[in-house]
Amino acid sequence: MLIDGLPTEQIPVADRGLQYGDGLFETIAVLKGRMPLWSRHMARLQRGEEQLGFPLTDKHLLEQEAGQLCEGLGQGIVKIILTRGSGGRGYRPPSDPQPRRIITRHPWPDYPEAWYRDGVRIRLCETRFSRQPRLAGIKHLNRLEQVLARSEWDDPGFAEGLMCDDLGNLISGTQSNLFLLMGRSLVTPELNDCGVAGVMRELVMASAASLGLEVRVGPIRPEDLERADGMFLTNAIWGVCPVSEASGVVYDLTRLSGIPVSHRLITETLFE
Amino acid sequence: MLIDGLPTEQIPVADRGLQYGDGLFETIAVLKGRMPLWSRHMARLQRGEEQLGFPLTDKHLLEQEAGQLCEGLGQGIVKIILTRGSGGRGYRPPSDPQPRRIITRHPWPDYPEAWYRDGVRIRLCETRFSRQPRLAGIKHLNRLEQVLARSEWDDPGFAEGLMCDDLGNLISGTQSNLFLLMGRSLVTPELNDCGVAGVMRELVMASAASLGLEVRVGPIRPEDLERADGMFLTNAIWGVCPVSEASGVVYDLTRLSGIPVSHRLITETLFE
Repeated sequence: MLIDGLPTEQIPVADRGLQYGDGLFETIAVLKGRMPLWSRHMARLQRGEEQLGFPLTDKHLLEQEAGQLCEGLGQGIVKIILTRGSGGRGYRPPSDPQPRRIITRHPWPDYPEAWYRDGVRIRLCETRFSRQPRLAGIKHLNRLEQVLARSEWDDPGFAEGLMCDDLGNLISGTQSNLFLLMGRSLVTPELNDCGVAGVMRELVMASAASLGLEVRVGPIRPEDLERADGMFLTNAIWGVCPVSEASGVVYDLTRLSGIPVSHRLITETLFE
Repeated sequence: MLIDGLPTEQIPVADRGLQYGDGLFETIAVLKGRMPLWSRHMARLQRGEEQLGFPLTDKHLLEQEAGQLCEGLGQGIVKIILTRGSGGRGYRPPSDPQPRRIITRHPWPDYPEAWYRDGVRIRLCETRFSRQPRLAGIKHLNRLEQVLARSEWDDPGFAEGLMCDDLGNLISGTQSNLFLLMGRSLVTPELNDCGVAGVMRELVMASAASLGLEVRVGPIRPEDLERADGMFLTNAIWGVCPVSEASGVVYDLTRLSGIPVSHRLITETLFE
């Protein structure tokens, strides 16, 4: 672990990340010792810095520090937390904030191979996203809604839970974005009011044309799950994860043929 | 500072308070060496624990630890942060969470005497509260909305900023609750969808009858500011703070006569 470049594992209680969730994070896949989606992660981090009014962190410095932690890590996870640092009076940010860089390294989680072969079962959560355009899309540290949603089930038979906003539109999973396959279109929810704009979601959207698919961004209602030909979830660690059953609706996985599941999409796009 | 009863000033990066804002806090006034609103603070903290699914912390232990920090502190502030502790996999809380108790001591802030004599000027913020009934009322650590709202102004001439929800109803200040005086009624916004149910707000509501006032909880629109006879803000540190001007509407402070400003309400209620 590195905090502001130094090997330590603790932060001061005065850090605004703890006090108010005043910060951002990125969870980055390390594959074959590299971070293939690095620039997309950094672009989102920077959108977050701009939206929260942080001074911009030197992304080369972050890359150097993350790279230092990656050394000898063939496959794993690097997590970056960037807080507004310490100080300020109450909610008011300091006039000259010194953001704190916290970079941690984690083993690759062993998700079952069956997820990618047979698809995952997912449920619909009761906890909803509130709508806050000022915070939508970015990956900030105010994550109680997802914590509450993820607390709703224990059954390991469900890999993920879908969350709606307060208008009843499907937004995302607790930790993943969602795509419906409808004919030759991929449909994914708009994230202007809530949710996190995932880097794998971006990569799928950028790669769709080369797979012969068009992408539509628009509202999805839970009823629409029945009209879809197929469904998959994305995040930086899962890659593209096919769904076999969503809230009782069963999908035929063969309909997703042609869409590279697991990390093949990243691999094909970036390591060829 | 005490963390889990030990004098230390750092927490592990793995703490869920930092990772997700998965925690609660209380900012408590110490007056004449005592914490007069202690039981109200603890009642709210416990509502938060229940709403977030924390195991209940021993409130006597908290009182003992806070008391230890208060020793020799005539007037000041004690802040308690309670996080879900470390652990869990991603957003999912650990099945057996060990909440972390962080108790800090701060000097009494020297708010100008003029605030209570002449009232404060306040502005209307553009940042709005999102509506999330699952988190409304409790004092959790997801406070980016207030951070953004408090970032809107630098002018020390404004002591506070009012925030609306996304429907345009006034909810509260960034760090205080609000009351309008209308005839012999005090009107304060409902906090079922957003905002923090302040302990001073509760005390004012409980004391209103003895001041010859009735309390109405209901929607307030910014237009209603012009129809009010007077206005004041409350929080545990400010006590009752009269408003001389809100978003351009000027109030005659003599209309608030009979309402004890500053900490006199606490003093009269609890120290007589």
